[in-house]
Formats: sequence, C-alpha cells, structure tokens
Amino acid sequence: MDSPMSDLTIEYTLSAIAGFIDGEVLGDDDHPIRGVATLEKAGPFDLSFLASKKYLSVLEKSRAGAIVCPEGIRIPHRNLILVKNPHLSFGRIVGLFHPSQEPEIAGIHPTAILGAGIRLGKGVAIGPYAVVGKGVVISDSASVGPLSWIGDRAEIGEGTRIGPRVSVYPDVRLGKRCVVQAGTVLGSDGFGYAEDDEGRHRKIPQVGRLVIEDDVEIGSNCAIDRGSLGDTIIGRGTKFDNLVHIAHNVTIGDDSLLVAQVGISGSTVIGKRVVLAGQAGVAGHIEIGNGAVVGAQAGVVKSVPPGEIVSGYPARPHRKALKTQALLVKIPELVERVKELENRVKAMRRNQTNVKPVKAGEPLDEPDDR
Amino acid sequence: MDSPMSDLTIEYTLSAIAGFIDGEVLGDDDHPIRGVATLEKAGPFDLSFLASKKYLSVLEKSRAGAIVCPEGIRIPHRNLILVKNPHLSFGRIVGLFHPSQEPEIAGIHPTAILGAGIRLGKGVAIGPYAVVGKGVVISDSASVGPLSWIGDRAEIGEGTRIGPRVSVYPDVRLGKRCVVQAGTVLGSDGFGYAEDDEGRHRKIPQVGRLVIEDDVEIGSNCAIDRGSLGDTIIGRGTKFDNLVHIAHNVTIGDDSLLVAQVGISGSTVIGKRVVLAGQAGVAGHIEIGNGAVVGAQAGVVKSVPPGEIVSGYPARPHRKALKTQALLVKIPELVERVKELENRVKAMRRNQTNVKPVKAGEPLDEPDDR
Amino acid sequence: MDSPMSDLTIEYTLSAIAGFIDGEVLGDDDHPIRGVATLEKAGPFDLSFLASKKYLSVLEKSRAGAIVCPEGIRIPHRNLILVKNPHLSFGRIVGLFHPSQEPEIAGIHPTAILGAGIRLGKGVAIGPYAVVGKGVVISDSASVGPLSWIGDRAEIGEGTRIGPRVSVYPDVRLGKRCVVQAGTVLGSDGFGYAEDDEGRHRKIPQVGRLVIEDDVEIGSNCAIDRGSLGDTIIGRGTKFDNLVHIAHNVTIGDDSLLVAQVGISGSTVIGKRVVLAGQAGVAGHIEIGNGAVVGAQAGVVKSVPPGEIVSGYPARPHRKALKTQALLVKIPELVERVKELENRVKAMRRNQTNVKPVKAGEPLDEPDDR
Repeated sequence: MDSPMSDLTIEYTLSAIAGFIDGEVLGDDDHPIRGVATLEKAGPFDLSFLASKKYLSVLEKSRAGAIVCPEGIRIPHRNLILVKNPHLSFGRIVGLFHPSQEPEIAGIHPTAILGAGIRLGKGVAIGPYAVVGKGVVISDSASVGPLSWIGDRAEIGEGTRIGPRVSVYPDVRLGKRCVVQAGTVLGSDGFGYAEDDEGRHRKIPQVGRLVIEDDVEIGSNCAIDRGSLGDTIIGRGTKFDNLVHIAHNVTIGDDSLLVAQVGISGSTVIGKRVVLAGQAGVAGHIEIGNGAVVGAQAGVVKSVPPGEIVSGYPARPHRKALKTQALLVKIPELVERVKELENRVKAMRRNQTNVKPVKAGEPLDEPDDR
Repeated sequence: MDSPMSDLTIEYTLSAIAGFIDGEVLGDDDHPIRGVATLEKAGPFDLSFLASKKYLSVLEKSRAGAIVCPEGIRIPHRNLILVKNPHLSFGRIVGLFHPSQEPEIAGIHPTAILGAGIRLGKGVAIGPYAVVGKGVVISDSASVGPLSWIGDRAEIGEGTRIGPRVSVYPDVRLGKRCVVQAGTVLGSDGFGYAEDDEGRHRKIPQVGRLVIEDDVEIGSNCAIDRGSLGDTIIGRGTKFDNLVHIAHNVTIGDDSLLVAQVGISGSTVIGKRVVLAGQAGVAGHIEIGNGAVVGAQAGVVKSVPPGEIVSGYPARPHRKALKTQALLVKIPELVERVKELENRVKAMRRNQTNVKPVKAGEPLDEPDDR
Repeated sequence: MDSPMSDLTIEYTLSAIAGFIDGEVLGDDDHPIRGVATLEKAGPFDLSFLASKKYLSVLEKSRAGAIVCPEGIRIPHRNLILVKNPHLSFGRIVGLFHPSQEPEIAGIHPTAILGAGIRLGKGVAIGPYAVVGKGVVISDSASVGPLSWIGDRAEIGEGTRIGPRVSVYPDVRLGKRCVVQAGTVLGSDGFGYAEDDEGRHRKIPQVGRLVIEDDVEIGSNCAIDRGSLGDTIIGRGTKFDNLVHIAHNVTIGDDSLLVAQVGISGSTVIGKRVVLAGQAGVAGHIEIGNGAVVGAQAGVVKSVPPGEIVSGYPARPHRKALKTQALLVKIPELVERVKELENRVKAMRRNQTNVKPVKAGEPLDEPDDR
C-alpha cells in the first residue's frame, strides 16, 4: 500500500468490514484487512473496490486481499464484499483506516485575533494567526484554519470547517457541515461597474450577501462573489472543485457539482443536481435547469432546459454537437462528390453538344468554363 | 429589502435623493426612501432602477416605492427619478444606504510587522498580521488588509486599498485609488525558461517590475506577473474580475475590462477600452487594438484591429464566426442537395443512353458506378 | 535601462561577461556593461540578446552596448558575444546584475510558529507569521515565506523555497530546489464524491499524498490536489505557470511545462517533456505521451500518443484541426458550386425535354421543382 499512513496497525476481519457497510461476504470471513488501496496497488491484506464492470480486467491482475463489488457479481477464488454502491461503501471504509488530512486544530489558539462581540459555540477551534472580525458567529464544533480571515458579522454554521488561508468577507453566511479549502475567497465584491460620461467605469457598490447553505464543500483557490443587490446563494449539498468562479447574484440549487475552473456569470440561476464539467463557462442572466449536464469547456450562452446535456461553444444539445463534429469530418468527401458531379455534368453537356454535327476544326473537348 | 443592512434607520425623501444625483422627480417629492433593491425584491419604501426599457415588464410588477429611470420615460402612478444614466446614478445612491463591505481597519495594528525604512503617509491603515517589507512606501489614506504581505520597496499610492490576504512582490508599484481584493498575487515571477543542452528548463530571472496605474481595481485570486526585462503595465482605470492571469511584460491600456478567468500571454499589448469577456485567452506577442471586444472563451491567436469584435477559437470577426456557425447547421441540407443532384445526373445519363437503341438483354437500369 | 535596480553600480567588461558564459567576443573586449535590457530599451552600457534571427531588424535599431547572439552571426560595428544558446546564457547574466526578487528571509522569524517534533536543516529560513505543523521536515537551505502554512509531517527538500502565503497540506513531500510562488495550495483534497441513495454527494476520504520531485517550479495561485488512494506525482524539473489545477492522482513526468490556467482531471498520466499551452484542459483517466504538445484552450478527451501535437475541442492532431478550419472557410464556396450545378442540371433537363416536339401552350421554362 502506498499511503504514508500504512504503518498504523489497524486490522479488521473481512466480516467486520462487511458489517460496517451492510455488505455480504463471498469468501473468507476472517481474512485480515489492514488497509485500502487501488486495484493496481493493493496487496494481500488490502481492501480495494470495483467501481464498474468495465474494470474487471484490472481486477483479474490485482493482488488485493478483498474487493468491494456491486451486488450480483461472482468471482471464484476471490474474497468479495457485495454492496449496492461500491464507491460509496468503500469511501466509508477508507475513513476507518485513515485519519483526516485536515489540519488538526483544537481550541482557540492564543495568537488568533477575535473581534468585539463575537459569539463562539461549544468546541469551536480557531487556528494560529486567524483574524476574526466583530460580531462574527461561529457555531458549535465549527473551526477556522490558521491564517484565515473572517470579516465582520459573518456567520459560520455548526460543524463547518474553514481551512487554512481562507477569506470570508463581512456578512457572509455559511450553513452547517460545510468545508472550505485553502486559499478560497468567499463574498468578495462582484464585477459591477457603470460607465460615466467620460467612458470611465464607476463601481456599483456590492451590498448583497453570500449565503451558503448546509453541506456545501468548496475546493482550493475558488472565488465566490457576494450579491450586488440581493444575494448570491449556494444550495445545500453542492460541491465545488478548485479555482471555480461564481459572480454576483448567482443562485445555485441543491446537490450540484461544479468541477475545476468553471465560471458562472452574474445573476444566472443553476438548478438542482446540475453537473458543470471542468472549465465550462456560463453566461449571465440565464437558467440551467435541474439535472442538466454541461460538458467540459462548454460555453453556455442561453438557458438550458432541465435534464439536457449540452457541450461545445456555443453550447448546444450534446447529440447535435456530436453530429456537427461528424459532419465536419465528412466535408472532404462532400467536396469530392461535388467535383465528380461537375465533371459528369460537363461530360453530359459535351454529349448534348455532340448530337449537333461537329464542324471541322472545332475542338471536341469543351474548355473548362468554371 | 433583502440586505443585511436593512435595519439601519436611514431615510431620505425622493426629492433629496433626486438632488443627490441631479435627477428630476416625477411623482411624490416627499415619498420616503429607506433602502435600495432590485425591481423584483423592492418594497414600498425602497428605491430601484430600470437599466433598460426591455425590463419594463418587470417594472410593471414591481412594488418599488420609486424607480430611477432613463430620461424621457413616463409611467403613470409611479414615483420616478429621471436621469441620464440610471445604472451609474443608482450606484451612487446605493452608497448612501450601505456602508462599505470592506474590512474596517484604522491605524497600524500592533501585530503588523513593518520593515526597516518604510514610509507611511497620513491616515494609513495596516491590518493585523500584515507583513510589510523594507523600504515600502504607503501613501496617504492607503490601507493594507489583514494577513497581507507587501514585499520590499513596493509602493502603494494614495487611497489605494489592498484587501486581506493579498501578496505584493518587491518593487511592485500601485497608483492612487486602486482596489485589490483577497487572495490576489501581484508581481510574481513570469513563466520564463530557456532550455539547456540536456533539455531541462532553466529559469530566466524575472527582474522587471509590475506597474499598476491609478484607479485600477482587481478581483479575488488573480495572478499578475512582473516583467522579465522591462515591466508589466496595467493602465489607469482598468478593472479585473476574479481569477485573471496576466503574464510577464503584458501592457494593458486605460479603462479596459477583464472579466473572470481571462488569461493574457507574455508581451501582448492590450489597448484602451478593450473588453475581454470571461475565460477568453490571448496569445503572446500580439496586439488587441483600442475598443476591441473579445468574446467569452475566445482564443485570440493573432492581433485584433481597433474596434473589432472577435469570438470563437481561433478568434475571428464575430460576424464571420456567426456565419460559420450558421453554415455548419446547413451542412446536412447541403449533403441532401448533392445526393439529389447525383440522382438526377444519373437519371439524365440514363436518358442520354436510352437515345441509343437498346439491345436485348441490356439492363435499363444503369448500375451505380460511384 | 528600465529596471528599478539600475542604480546599482555593478560594471563588468564584455570579455569578463563572455568568460562567464563561455562565449566569444566580437568587437571591443573592454566595453563596459552595467546592466541588461531588451533590444528596444537597452542603452550603450547595457547588454541585450538576440533570441532568433527573425529579430535582426529590431537589433539594427537597438542602441545596446553589446548583444549576446547565436554562433555564426557577424554584424559589423557591433559588440557581440557569440554563444550556442543566447536565451539561456543571457538568463545567467541577468542574475549577475539583479538580485533575486524573492522575499529576503533569513533565520527563523520569532513570530513563526513551529509544531512539535519538527526537524530543521542548516540555513533554514522561516518568515514572519508562518505556521509550521508537527513533525515537519525542512532540509538545509530551504525556506518558508511569510504567512505560509505547512501542514503536519510535510517534507521540504534541500534548497526548496516556499513563497509567501502558500498552503502545504499534511504529508505533502517536496524535493530539492523547488520553487512555489504566492497563494498556491499544495495537497488539498481532490473532488471525490460518491452518490448515495438519496442522490446526495458523499465525500470519499482523500488519503493519498502529493509528491513533488526535485527542481519543480510552481507559479501563483495554483491548486494541486493530493491523491485519493495512491499519490499525485509531479516529475522532476516540471514547471507550472499561474492558476493551474491538478486533480487527484494525476502523474506528470519530468521536464513538462504547464502554462497558465491549465486543468488536468483525475488519474490522468502526463508524460515527460509534454507542453500544455494556456487554458488547455485534459480529461480524466487518459494518457498524454512523452513530448506531446497540447495547444492553447485545447480540450483533450482521449489519450494522445507520444510526440503528437493536438489542438481544438475535442482535441485532434493539429494538422487535421487546421484542415477542418480551412474546410469550414470553403463551405460558402461549396454552397455556390452546388447551386451552379443545380442550375446547369436544370438547364440540361430542359434541353433533353426540348428534343421532343414542343406542343402549343406548353411552357418552355421548366418550373423550379426543388
């Protein structure tokens, strides 16, 4: 196993692990499991998992001591745990063997600066050199990482973990059990300017809030702006990868996924359970319906209905985009067909002409008249 | 009204507000205004604004107590303030009702670390745990946010506000009244390497400066590199959204707009009043002329003349890009037309052939010879 | 000369400089050199360089006192130093005239917080307000910038320089002579979620490491995730520009270049000496072969063989992509050709028809039957 934690002497029997995830053991109930690893790297005392049947050939070569598999699978001479959702169940087991990689902070570090009137719940942790503004509320079991800045009147919900070097601007509100990774900025001013008579850009004050609901998780170095008037809202359970940009007054529904380097322009409404793949961009003032999927690098310039899959620039239904791709490839053939037609038509005209008596000295070949 | 500040008991009459923005009241001069909001969310004591006539239908349903509108508009039974530029005027009023969302810092926090030989103007504020290098100059009324780092010899102009957790590398120069939001890095080394005989990349020292002129505003988590030799220059009044990348030796003119996630490669020259929409990328060593507009996600690989609007990858004049889009959609039809031509030509050849006497046993149908 | 350092009174003779870079002087051996500058900006005591013969016209107008040129060049009345690789050699000379722009830090600043059990080599520097976790190893001559956070058990190799405001998560390992610029996050959790029965995204613990080999250099505000199981690996000598995203379990080979705003999805394997141009994106679980080049903004969705140059979305061999571009431009012409064919065929049919006797009242013009 290739993890730095592998020298921890934790050991479970296969049946104990199966019990933990409500799975069924096929094979040796008592096989000892001491770690978790990918199929490629697992050894005889490691547990691995099969996400999908298309990886069965990888499984065949694996030395894994046991494998979490989808129900219905049978593989002779292998220790298996059958579950409904192997990826999910395996994820829970990983937690058994590995402590969290997050900074361990406990209590209020003496170098943390706390503003007047702040309210702290039970079990709150604040790391070294964190700067927390006036009137901030940090609820039970929430934590603020080292070197983070929390602006005045911000609210951090129960169990929410703000990582190291995070910026939370004033009046931002985070729900319960959120996670924010290093370098992310929450609640900065949006890009709002009006042009004056001399053609200069004058700032429109950005006075709305950023409201982040429960169970939202945000990667590293993201930038999420507060509202201009009104609020920017991130719905419950939505997850952000790294380097994502969210403009002012965007609303995102519950349980959506925003992959790395996605950018959403101002006032756009993203539905529930939407997936925005990496580097996709969405124009302002449009809607992406519930359950829609936006392909990687797609540029969405108009609203997308619920459940639609779009790709390309400008984004269109994925099937049409694929068809266009296929047609592009056919253009050389089409050019050839047109050329052949031209030749034939030329030949036929010659034939028609030849019906007339040919005068001496007249060329039989018709000159190219194109 | 949906702002967290709504319990502030500020109240103005409509005529007082109109006076503030040189507008003309149509309706009740004495109508009390206690806040600002969007048309959708405004209540009877809120002021809202109409950016353009296309939102008139939204205005009809609005409960706003008064609305800032463009001159020439008449709406019966509504309190209006008529001005030339509603967005700009409204922005100024927002400031009446909402204090700045920026961190309130005043004076030099005792935990700020100040290098030898630094020069501070009047009214300078430096936040907690800021680290300011040797020989730095911070002019009157300028501020440095909490947890920011200012490298040696950097200069920060009058009234410029460096946000929390910003990095300013040595010798960077910022003009007057600039704003830099959290997480941004100014003056890092550019991506300059030369390949040695063994195919390894050797760093070219990056010894130029980054010079930022007056009234420049920069969003969150941007990265703007210093010059290699010579300087990177950002012109007066130019505004940056979040997560923008500027490579070494780029020059940007005055009053340009760089929307989120734009990237500009080395030594490129961007003119005045250029707009680069979100996620656009510009190659190195080219020029974007004054007043040009680069569409979202466009990839600009050659110079763009002044005033041109370009889009797509590779970027070309927007009209041509649209035409290409339209033609793509026509390819299926074109394929059909060619097929029909082929059939007709085939039929006509058969007719020509049929003029000759048909021998017994000879097929009437010409075989497909394509 | 346009550098802020120009008042340093360093002076070398041309022959001394030539000796330093093993070059041959053509011209005045004793010509004094006091600085370095671009051809455009150099004065009579500045050294400049000619990267390629295509800039000879710029050289002609230059006032530079001497110029580093490729071997074989002769320019009368000019002081030249001839070397094999002018860019590389010039880079070394720049270092003679300009001290490093990095923060000068020496020793352990008294405000740095050091965790239990940390091991520090000789000559280690740690800046003000840096927070270093438990069990961290910092080798000889390595440095940690101001306001940076180093998580527990991280290892920083000999001579590696961590810039200001950098985050290094626990267990990340950096090799020797690496450079990390401001705002970058190393070893954050990857974007790993499994969907539960209610359609909610449940986090998969990310328990692998991030291993960065020797001589890797990383720009500003990048985000590089640790492995999920197994490790994320960055090969020796690879360089990153700004705002680059690397997902969990990516492997990158030696001496590759990742230009600004590139994003690599999970588990992808990038070979040695690969170039990924700005804003390119690469899908997960694929391979980019050694020496491949991925064009700016390309979207790579399937594996790329070694040495291949790809561009566009979806990325394909660059020659094919260019051909497609060229064909697109030809579509309007093709439409015209098809139209002409249709007209001709129509005319020919009329002719065939006209061979038959024309009845009175029958129109000579065939109606358009398309």
